[in-house]
Amino acid sequence: MNATLTEDAYRAAGVDIDAQDRALASVKELVRSTVVPGVLSELGGFGGLFALPAGLRDPVLVASADGVGTKLMVAKVAGDYSTVGHDLVNHCVNDILVQGARPLFFLDYVGAGVLEPRHVVSLVAGVAAGCRENGCALLGGETAEMPGFYQPGDYELVGFIVGLVERHRILGPQRVKVGDRLVGLASAGLHTNGYSLARRVVFDQLGLGIDDPLPAPSGDSGAMPTVRAALLAPHRSYLEPLLGLLEQPGLHAMAHVTGGGLTDNVPRSLPPGCRARISTSAWEVPPLFRLLGERGSVGDDEMRRVFNLGIGMVLLVAADAHDEVLAHLAHSGAPGIALGEVVAGDPGVDYLPS
Amino acid sequence: MNATLTEDAYRAAGVDIDAQDRALASVKELVRSTVVPGVLSELGGFGGLFALPAGLRDPVLVASADGVGTKLMVAKVAGDYSTVGHDLVNHCVNDILVQGARPLFFLDYVGAGVLEPRHVVSLVAGVAAGCRENGCALLGGETAEMPGFYQPGDYELVGFIVGLVERHRILGPQRVKVGDRLVGLASAGLHTNGYSLARRVVFDQLGLGIDDPLPAPSGDSGAMPTVRAALLAPHRSYLEPLLGLLEQPGLHAMAHVTGGGLTDNVPRSLPPGCRARISTSAWEVPPLFRLLGERGSVGDDEMRRVFNLGIGMVLLVAADAHDEVLAHLAHSGAPGIALGEVVAGDPGVDYLPS
Repeated sequence: MNATLTEDAYRAAGVDIDAQDRALASVKELVRSTVVPGVLSELGGFGGLFALPAGLRDPVLVASADGVGTKLMVAKVAGDYSTVGHDLVNHCVNDILVQGARPLFFLDYVGAGVLEPRHVVSLVAGVAAGCRENGCALLGGETAEMPGFYQPGDYELVGFIVGLVERHRILGPQRVKVGDRLVGLASAGLHTNGYSLARRVVFDQLGLGIDDPLPAPSGDSGAMPTVRAALLAPHRSYLEPLLGLLEQPGLHAMAHVTGGGLTDNVPRSLPPGCRARISTSAWEVPPLFRLLGERGSVGDDEMRRVFNLGIGMVLLVAADAHDEVLAHLAHSGAPGIALGEVVAGDPGVDYLPS
Repeated sequence: MNATLTEDAYRAAGVDIDAQDRALASVKELVRSTVVPGVLSELGGFGGLFALPAGLRDPVLVASADGVGTKLMVAKVAGDYSTVGHDLVNHCVNDILVQGARPLFFLDYVGAGVLEPRHVVSLVAGVAAGCRENGCALLGGETAEMPGFYQPGDYELVGFIVGLVERHRILGPQRVKVGDRLVGLASAGLHTNGYSLARRVVFDQLGLGIDDPLPAPSGDSGAMPTVRAALLAPHRSYLEPLLGLLEQPGLHAMAHVTGGGLTDNVPRSLPPGCRARISTSAWEVPPLFRLLGERGSVGDDEMRRVFNLGIGMVLLVAADAHDEVLAHLAHSGAPGIALGEVVAGDPGVDYLPS
């Protein structure tokens, strides 16, 4: 081919640098809304600057990276990009909270074929809302326009969080012992996992539209939410209800129930020689999960690896602190659910009917 | 539709959790190869743990997020995913180096429709090589399988870096003055910017294959590299040659020349009232850029916003430290190029023919 590119060749090649600049300007105010003590930089520098708090004894940084998965494809169908950013921040906050860390700052990455400024602002507005909820700064980020790489209307959204914990307060398997109790905290829905399966059941098998109400699972007569409300319900942050417990010596570890469900995530907080025993009658699996299992003909084992089934976080707690932890949670707006206990055995989970 | 999903419904829905686990196991060794003092965690925890060095006075964290852009599409055409991870780390290292920070740790995100374990290992091997080169730990990351979101063979790769600088050594516009000199460091090629345009010229207009040699630009008789060698040449890290200069008080600021070129990036390091004057005869634009400009009929202004044109990093240096900085660079393997100076005016760049 011999056609030559015109003067604004780069723009013709699909990259509109000015459009990126406009979106950047629009989100500056959102970024400012998240400023917390420690932030030294404004957006536009090469890196974000964050001064560590003074008076730390033996500070350990805790960092995590995550995405939103195919929940993004629900956002696209719904034409609503305003909630997935909040999902992402809450997910990341929970991932470092399980090691006892409080968030310091967050960075995001938005990738698309063409960055529609209003969509970028929507995405970042969700991120900023999540940052404000969790008291962490949106310290920086990147927006990338990659023509031909992403399909029209698709936005990739990746987050990165850094938090802080004093070394003597790091939670984890090293603290867990046989006899510890498992305390669950309710999820707010699917959170950000199991969406490939959920989308297939809801859209392909049931043939529902985004604003249709979900049918109830069999044996259930309660009102069900719309597809939109059910599938875009935000991932819950457990920071606020758990902040007051981070200094409690009886709190040994936590497991954030994400991809892999209870089955794969609880063992990540178990030391060698310890196994979790969970009573399946300790809580009622919410109707949304029962519907997906029933209509998708998904077996119990698979369900427990794909979905959180209504439990978004599990605390591993010393037996003698169990009552105190439950009392704290009852007053924090996130009542604890006594799920079971840690027993001797290879790491893994046994589900008992009672 | 009423077809029901089978027992391993989630797998049928396109998500293979076991394949992810296998890839994860394969990369663990790569991650271990990057361990530096401070790393407290192994892969598999919810967050990565990094203990801050002792004896810091007033530590400031510097963080940045970035992607590789459509250089990823060249990697796909070349069937070689082993270099873009190294690009990404070096890019991120440079982004925090400009503020005086040395890297502590890095996290990556890999997204794909289907994660081919050998491709994931290739990608992470590049990231690990970059981490080792720059002495930073690969502290964690996320691999996400998103069926239907990415096209077959496409991999998104996003990186996050955290580094450290003492507050009194933060570099930036606040140190820059009229009369400061601009010192350029050579790039190793396109680095990671301008790929949408470069791909259009090379693949669409010139109709070249990945292993074809590039034609020379007019008036040039030297041998040219293949498309593969030219377009996958790694983004250069400037950490090693510049490490010895970070305590030099005459080094005021730097600009990493990425998207936006010299025109948009040099002003990011200028305070109000300062303008850059760059002599275009100070260095020879490498043949690859001349070829792209010529065959793409891209004007000078556009070229300077799209490509680095052979200058990957610019140092802003006090006039009385200029000779010392050039002497240091001459011995460091990255000879400095006297590009011009900072003059009074609105932030921006003037290009002078001599």
